[in-house]
Amino acid sequence: MSDVKVKVGILGASGYTGAELVRILAHHAAAEIVLLTADRRAGRPFGEVFPHLAHLNLPTMIRIDEADWDSVDFIFCALPHGTTQEVIAGLPGHIKVVDLSADFRLFDAATYKEWYGAEHAARELQKEVVYGLTELHREKVAKARIVANPGCYPTPVQLSLTPLLEQKLVLAQDIIVDAKSGATGAGRSPKEGLLFAEVTEGIHAYGTGGHRHAPEIEQGLAWASGEDVVINFSPHLMPMSRGILESIYVKMADGVTPEQIHEVLAKRYAGEPFVRVLPFGATPQTRHVRGSNYVLIGVVKDRVPGRVIIVAVEDNLVKGASGQAVQNMNVMMGLPETMGLEIEPLFP
Amino acid sequence: MSDVKVKVGILGASGYTGAELVRILAHHAAAEIVLLTADRRAGRPFGEVFPHLAHLNLPTMIRIDEADWDSVDFIFCALPHGTTQEVIAGLPGHIKVVDLSADFRLFDAATYKEWYGAEHAARELQKEVVYGLTELHREKVAKARIVANPGCYPTPVQLSLTPLLEQKLVLAQDIIVDAKSGATGAGRSPKEGLLFAEVTEGIHAYGTGGHRHAPEIEQGLAWASGEDVVINFSPHLMPMSRGILESIYVKMADGVTPEQIHEVLAKRYAGEPFVRVLPFGATPQTRHVRGSNYVLIGVVKDRVPGRVIIVAVEDNLVKGASGQAVQNMNVMMGLPETMGLEIEPLFP
Amino acid sequence: MSDVKVKVGILGASGYTGAELVRILAHHAAAEIVLLTADRRAGRPFGEVFPHLAHLNLPTMIRIDEADWDSVDFIFCALPHGTTQEVIAGLPGHIKVVDLSADFRLFDAATYKEWYGAEHAARELQKEVVYGLTELHREKVAKARIVANPGCYPTPVQLSLTPLLEQKLVLAQDIIVDAKSGATGAGRSPKEGLLFAEVTEGIHAYGTGGHRHAPEIEQGLAWASGEDVVINFSPHLMPMSRGILESIYVKMADGVTPEQIHEVLAKRYAGEPFVRVLPFGATPQTRHVRGSNYVLIGVVKDRVPGRVIIVAVEDNLVKGASGQAVQNMNVMMGLPETMGLEIEPLFP
Amino acid sequence: MSDVKVKVGILGASGYTGAELVRILAHHAAAEIVLLTADRRAGRPFGEVFPHLAHLNLPTMIRIDEADWDSVDFIFCALPHGTTQEVIAGLPGHIKVVDLSADFRLFDAATYKEWYGAEHAARELQKEVVYGLTELHREKVAKARIVANPGCYPTPVQLSLTPLLEQKLVLAQDIIVDAKSGATGAGRSPKEGLLFAEVTEGIHAYGTGGHRHAPEIEQGLAWASGEDVVINFSPHLMPMSRGILESIYVKMADGVTPEQIHEVLAKRYAGEPFVRVLPFGATPQTRHVRGSNYVLIGVVKDRVPGRVIIVAVEDNLVKGASGQAVQNMNVMMGLPETMGLEIEPLFP
Repeated sequence: MSDVKVKVGILGASGYTGAELVRILAHHAAAEIVLLTADRRAGRPFGEVFPHLAHLNLPTMIRIDEADWDSVDFIFCALPHGTTQEVIAGLPGHIKVVDLSADFRLFDAATYKEWYGAEHAARELQKEVVYGLTELHREKVAKARIVANPGCYPTPVQLSLTPLLEQKLVLAQDIIVDAKSGATGAGRSPKEGLLFAEVTEGIHAYGTGGHRHAPEIEQGLAWASGEDVVINFSPHLMPMSRGILESIYVKMADGVTPEQIHEVLAKRYAGEPFVRVLPFGATPQTRHVRGSNYVLIGVVKDRVPGRVIIVAVEDNLVKGASGQAVQNMNVMMGLPETMGLEIEPLFP
Repeated sequence: MSDVKVKVGILGASGYTGAELVRILAHHAAAEIVLLTADRRAGRPFGEVFPHLAHLNLPTMIRIDEADWDSVDFIFCALPHGTTQEVIAGLPGHIKVVDLSADFRLFDAATYKEWYGAEHAARELQKEVVYGLTELHREKVAKARIVANPGCYPTPVQLSLTPLLEQKLVLAQDIIVDAKSGATGAGRSPKEGLLFAEVTEGIHAYGTGGHRHAPEIEQGLAWASGEDVVINFSPHLMPMSRGILESIYVKMADGVTPEQIHEVLAKRYAGEPFVRVLPFGATPQTRHVRGSNYVLIGVVKDRVPGRVIIVAVEDNLVKGASGQAVQNMNVMMGLPETMGLEIEPLFP
Repeated sequence: MSDVKVKVGILGASGYTGAELVRILAHHAAAEIVLLTADRRAGRPFGEVFPHLAHLNLPTMIRIDEADWDSVDFIFCALPHGTTQEVIAGLPGHIKVVDLSADFRLFDAATYKEWYGAEHAARELQKEVVYGLTELHREKVAKARIVANPGCYPTPVQLSLTPLLEQKLVLAQDIIVDAKSGATGAGRSPKEGLLFAEVTEGIHAYGTGGHRHAPEIEQGLAWASGEDVVINFSPHLMPMSRGILESIYVKMADGVTPEQIHEVLAKRYAGEPFVRVLPFGATPQTRHVRGSNYVLIGVVKDRVPGRVIIVAVEDNLVKGASGQAVQNMNVMMGLPETMGLEIEPLFP
Repeated sequence: MSDVKVKVGILGASGYTGAELVRILAHHAAAEIVLLTADRRAGRPFGEVFPHLAHLNLPTMIRIDEADWDSVDFIFCALPHGTTQEVIAGLPGHIKVVDLSADFRLFDAATYKEWYGAEHAARELQKEVVYGLTELHREKVAKARIVANPGCYPTPVQLSLTPLLEQKLVLAQDIIVDAKSGATGAGRSPKEGLLFAEVTEGIHAYGTGGHRHAPEIEQGLAWASGEDVVINFSPHLMPMSRGILESIYVKMADGVTPEQIHEVLAKRYAGEPFVRVLPFGATPQTRHVRGSNYVLIGVVKDRVPGRVIIVAVEDNLVKGASGQAVQNMNVMMGLPETMGLEIEPLFP
């Protein structure tokens, strides 16, 4: 690591993940923000859009077509899916990229088309993309030019189940993921259903049986298990800003005990800075990871014989988006993986 | 129904379910509150404990041992479990009772002892108790002197699954109930874990695999299916006051379709004033039943073949407690079942 | 009051005040909803827009120009300000109207123009309009054809100060109203600043020194005091759906004591069904009026000699909008004033 | 600043301010936590009480009487008021102290007794105490052995008014401070009034005209103005964890304009790392300082001639408590004042 800082650009900086990237990178010892784009808000200072960061010394937001790519080493792309493919395809080859959209997460063209309703616009590029769930794909990430940052929902469940499926400790079929997310997961675009008065003091299911993160999860679990996987994925919208909790209900292979499940996960993540497996029987709270890059995993015995319950939490904007993106940048640039991410959870 | 009103007493009136009973009964055309007890707060006006109802003309709270039972026709017992058995056993026989505690909900003595850690103090009385999930046991409730009002969690899941288990449309094994509850479900006694700053902006699981409502649910599902049932019941604490949402994951019997599941539920509850089955594929929100006695049920197709998802909601303090208690009183006293309960949900 | 029910129409039914009107009128013994309009959502059932009321038997929403005015006796107009004037001017004379918009609240043409930036489109009509703060203008309301329903903020402060200004107990100058409102006060139109994640867990001032309710309050206080009034009105947006709390800081006239202030208010509202003055020194909570038509007023001694603090609360959607609108309808139609409004607060 | 880290002890570590001290000090480059006390929870690991920080390598909590003072350079005292005086009086003289309780904030013995109902137990010690509102008393803090850390409410208002009173730009009489605080301000001890269901979705005033922070504010304003000050201080409890917003209503001296007020404040704090004065007319939000040590101040023109409105926000647990405490430690130990406090606000 030299004294020269990585020159970082953030495309689509006016959304919540953009703000989180800025918050994290502001104190990153080896990165410097040199470019912020936001097409609709071009020309405005970042602090007008996110006053909590107005005191930082940041470039004014510009349109993407105004960007001087020569001055940039690294791009975080936080654009809406769909437009992303074209933008990334047009970037010069010296720029490494972490893409926070869904555009490069599905590696099967047919699956992409089925869930996003259109042909992928940059299938060639897909071949060089690496799926950036850092703890599971670290070595590939280190060599990648383009990393597809995982979706918020897919991160905790893949961390929870991948080691178990790899060792055939749980069945790849019959997996139920009951997920609960804070409202920032839906972004900052105004919609009636996201108004405070519509979200506070209540909970509801949405996208039940048909959420776009389902195929991404299934893809990851298939990689782990070596077989096709179809899961039940049922997300719910919660009256909180940040946080995802996933209650994962699985069947164990014959003879496997919940205690074994716990032991395997605890061992797997013992050396990981951002993944903590709680003592057997304990379950985590989303508020205990708020604002941080941690994932907490708990393993609990089920009353139903042969079943086990895994509960995992993360902050959807950090480990579920911008934190993991920076973690990936660190790995891609040969920097210490935790750099800039040593931020403690904010509780209460 | 004569002009003479039912003289009602509420034991343990200073908790949330007590306040809800008062709120509902205040405008009940055929009931009159003549007795309020609250041992620790005896001598204080009810409006001091619940200022939102201070304008009502209510009796001062007294100790139970000061009660004049001759002036009372009907008792709602909202005491903590454990103490309840003795109190109800000591009531004169002319008084009908709805008990909101857990003391008479489990009809098997061994199960009671297993979950509550003590012998039941009034097993004889248990024989004349009827389990008061009104829609499922209405005829028995009509003839009962003592009704055990169901727990908040057991109500939606039993309404959802009983018709299906009775007709063998879903399997009695492998039932997963992922439940999310507002904080009032834990009562009004001060505890660190229930402080605003500990509950807001987060979610966590609790009692996973070991909540006391599990055996109550299993008992009801066993009645419906005719076989022993062990379920996965996983409750979560949500940052909201009121409301329970249950995501119920079940396997269908061979050849059964989700559409059939929906049709059976829709037919079963077509004539019920307080249970509404949404159009197929739609899921309900807790905020749409807040403050009301409604249960809403949605049926959704699962991506996993052979599975179906049922999502049900209620207000835990109304249909999950005091509302259903009044509904039971109406049935027991030969009054119109909806009397006093024609209260619309408060949204937003 | 005859057996024939008032045929009621609600214009602009798809907003929060529309939903509240429906909630209240659904159980009104002498009114029947025969017309619901919502231009953008015409043709859709009301229950699609407000699922919590989907079980009610309501007319489908239509466009205003489709309305059959002959079948309507009474209109609640919940349209945006600006468009309202024209619509009401075009209604046939047999229809009585309560207008919930701001269009007819300011009786001085110049003031209207100053604050709303346009000439009033129906100044002639203004002459027959009565300002509907029911408790203060009941007799005029009883004879009115068109009533301008007060704004949410102006209601508690006028109730608090009018009796005091009439008797010259407090100074008409130097009045400070620090107001805190829930998010429903801003309506249901999607805006970034009203998203859950933008409103939760924080408070901010808005419209400080320049909110459009200031001239309406000043008008009412001028009526009471007989002199021109300019107030400091500082509203704040709170992370809650419903409720307004106003902390009102005033100077007393020489020799007046806070106890006297309390006594005058207590006497004035002793017979009022919806206004309660708390014991001296006690202050009210918004959550104790949620969902109800009550206003609670507390009077507290200030540490600064010669000053007194008055704290008043209401539910902005009920007494601050739809509840007071129904209260006015009752008065205008010669019905019991509390009819349909005997709804207890929902707490917790 | 040498390589040797300051050995820090935290007394009363199990409360919210204790947790915040740990969160901040965990990444402080020149401090090391060597002692944590918590009498009721002695013997338990810190991470059991605050699981969000369980991954940190911290000493087990012990009782105060078990402390080895020789190994400690610096104490943060976060004990309840009353007990604090005795504890601090008993500390060896080589230890510097920041006291977060109220015990040494009032410098007048009679005022202390009036508000706390008892004689001060360590009046002699009071003479060497410095009041630690860092920006206002930095030079004295630098030389102090014992610093009384300001209360949460007194911090923003003193920062807002001190420069104005010093220059006689506003009147020292007739000051109204309408304050709104999150629930953490009331601590972590379980009380009915702090339960989630009692705090959510509502606001209420408390301690109106009689809160213990009033004399502390008055003391500071008297220092600034050179005359006795009696203020109106009206706090309100908000449904949020963190944050204080103060709306401050003052009269300007003859001929002074709001723009001048703004300019004076902007100049005064131009070089301060933690105090930001917004552009004239803009008002701040508590959510934009959450988790950080910032104070934001806005100045707005009032409609009432001669008056000005100042709105100031902070995070009550950071600048209002633990953040300012660390800021004071930095000053007292000759460290860079911002060390450990370069934490960005967490929004949303």
